[in-house]
Amino acid sequence: MPTTLITNIGSLVTNDPSLGTGPLGLVADAAVVMADGLIAWVGPADRAPAADEVYDAGGRAALPGFVDSHSHLVFGGDRTQEFNARMSGTPYTAGGIRTTVAATRAASDAELDATVARYVAEARRQGTTTIETKSGYGLTAEDEARSLRIAAAHTPETTYLGAHIVAPEYADDPAGYVDLVTGPMLEACAPHARWVDVFCEKGAFDGDQARAILTAGARAGLIPRVHANQLTYGPGVQLAVELGAASADHCTHLTDADVDALASSGGATIATLLPGAEFSTRATYPDARRLIDAGAAVALSTDCNPGSSFTSSMPFCIAVAVRDMRMTPDEAVAAATLGGARALRRDDVGRITAGARADLMLLDAPSHVHLAYRPGVPLVSRVWQGGVRAA
Amino acid sequence: MPTTLITNIGSLVTNDPSLGTGPLGLVADAAVVMADGLIAWVGPADRAPAADEVYDAGGRAALPGFVDSHSHLVFGGDRTQEFNARMSGTPYTAGGIRTTVAATRAASDAELDATVARYVAEARRQGTTTIETKSGYGLTAEDEARSLRIAAAHTPETTYLGAHIVAPEYADDPAGYVDLVTGPMLEACAPHARWVDVFCEKGAFDGDQARAILTAGARAGLIPRVHANQLTYGPGVQLAVELGAASADHCTHLTDADVDALASSGGATIATLLPGAEFSTRATYPDARRLIDAGAAVALSTDCNPGSSFTSSMPFCIAVAVRDMRMTPDEAVAAATLGGARALRRDDVGRITAGARADLMLLDAPSHVHLAYRPGVPLVSRVWQGGVRAA
Ligand SMILES: [Zn+2]
Ligand SMILES: [Zn+2]
Repeated sequence: MPTTLITNIGSLVTNDPSLGTGPLGLVADAAVVMADGLIAWVGPADRAPAADEVYDAGGRAALPGFVDSHSHLVFGGDRTQEFNARMSGTPYTAGGIRTTVAATRAASDAELDATVARYVAEARRQGTTTIETKSGYGLTAEDEARSLRIAAAHTPETTYLGAHIVAPEYADDPAGYVDLVTGPMLEACAPHARWVDVFCEKGAFDGDQARAILTAGARAGLIPRVHANQLTYGPGVQLAVELGAASADHCTHLTDADVDALASSGGATIATLLPGAEFSTRATYPDARRLIDAGAAVALSTDCNPGSSFTSSMPFCIAVAVRDMRMTPDEAVAAATLGGARALRRDDVGRITAGARADLMLLDAPSHVHLAYRPGVPLVSRVWQGGVRAA
Repeated sequence: MPTTLITNIGSLVTNDPSLGTGPLGLVADAAVVMADGLIAWVGPADRAPAADEVYDAGGRAALPGFVDSHSHLVFGGDRTQEFNARMSGTPYTAGGIRTTVAATRAASDAELDATVARYVAEARRQGTTTIETKSGYGLTAEDEARSLRIAAAHTPETTYLGAHIVAPEYADDPAGYVDLVTGPMLEACAPHARWVDVFCEKGAFDGDQARAILTAGARAGLIPRVHANQLTYGPGVQLAVELGAASADHCTHLTDADVDALASSGGATIATLLPGAEFSTRATYPDARRLIDAGAAVALSTDCNPGSSFTSSMPFCIAVAVRDMRMTPDEAVAAATLGGARALRRDDVGRITAGARADLMLLDAPSHVHLAYRPGVPLVSRVWQGGVRAA
């Protein structure tokens, strides 16, 4: 594989403070050398070593590929009408997640595979080079395992979310459903997943159920992460920290004790904020400033799913996080790259340092700040994933 | 010029209720024929006439090209640091518009021309096929005329905004500046402009000054439009209606009398809402619902400028308008197409009807609702402008 030098980068985010200025480790007039799918060298362009191929970035800004640590891409069907009704003020009593469960079960493997491929590619064109995705619309052992098997063909970051909601067949027997999720369904799913997740929320799973599900998943070799404190206050965040989950996701309704728990985890449990969900449901945004000021580590992700947040755009999430969650542009960009990597416990992505995976993008802009300064504008102009041009 | 049939359009917004269902005149399984730069035929695909060339839309949605009736694209310099400071909570005392005025005066004609070309093209890739743009960063007769001459090479919708702020040289003599704006500067600018505009706001121009400027512009053959009621309550909106302005832009702070004035203009004066400005300054959004429910006609535009709203993305404005301004997806799409056309008093754009200009786009989505349902995602996949492939 020939080595490639990307030079004339106007401003480079490395996410390594030892390589440049500030927490983002910014390097002006920078260059990067890629070899064998990895970053081989980073530094000032005028000191760059030779390489087989040279790419002139034309003064554009570069940053690590986005790490989207929370999405739900294995789904069937469409919920345009539900969204339209919600945004038009028409009362509706749609089944929400249940609508997607029925459509997912009815879809063929090929249809589900095409859906995942489509949205992974769409995200990649917008700079996302690492993406986590979940099951959770099958809710039978067979459909959950099938969802994860299909997802695993597209990403190693697969999450078993049999505990998304209680399956319709178990509406009158939630305890029976937890037995399924912690028993035969887990057994069928564990070979295809890295993570186990639960929607710990009123109307979904309470603290005791969530604990049972995450503990069973951990025994099967999966690492916990938790949908926590999205719609209401609840036990999710503190349970996530107690169980050493990699991430507590949403974190919209937090007590001081919740914030303290995240902060005192010392970065073991990342607060993953998903502003797309609040955007598309007209809900109140999580307060990123409060978390950061308390010392908690944060990540930004899309929550891409057809119901509550049908965006695959990390730049959009950055812009909203700056506008509505009181993050600075630097903090939001760090949360969308390094933060996501930490939420997935990956040290090979989310940074541009020697030895890391050669995942990076160029912006049609002179600075990473433009991701917030120019909301909605498709600024991602070129993407490399493992050293290969991906967009 | 060969005729082109675009067929297999899953869902077509015509903006002509006589052609389809609802106010958007939606046609399912539609086709469009373009000839000599115009729409020659619209209707169900199975009844489409033959054409020289056939393009298969693959079931995608189509809609009229966006009409962005408010932008400020003739500028020099950059205000990234000002934005970054504002969003990072750092106190700053930057000169705002004055920074851009200095940089614009210092820029060469070629630099300004390249800037306008760049952002017009960027907007076009996002579906904008008609764009208005203003002077207002020159503030001398020569620099204002130069700005308009450069803008006019890119769009016929040019607006003389010598009255953006009082030029720094006239800080102690605002009356003298109004004399310049209504005298020699107007004379120099009128040949290059279709519209006259004024920033009627505390700290800019008061009601009497605005009236003098708009009246002088009208005598010189320009049609008024007004930056009105953006930062505070004020006389701008009612003045716009009184003078028969085509548009009152921003409309963020409205009394009931302001709303009534817009509604009772019978659509002569459009309320042009610019959510990008509120997004990027963390301000309160205008209440589109109140205006629409009162019977006022509304448009959506970007206000694209390097200070307060550096987005060129009409899809972004639609998504924010639905989320934060209580518009339905249908209303927002209409406001971004037909609404903009009305704000520019154009009946040849903003609709897909026989005889209109062949300005339309395809979305990588089955419905126009996805512009709001999938915020931030670059869904515009193909654009025709005057019947020519433009993206
Ligand atoms: Zn989720
Ligand atoms: Zn403006």
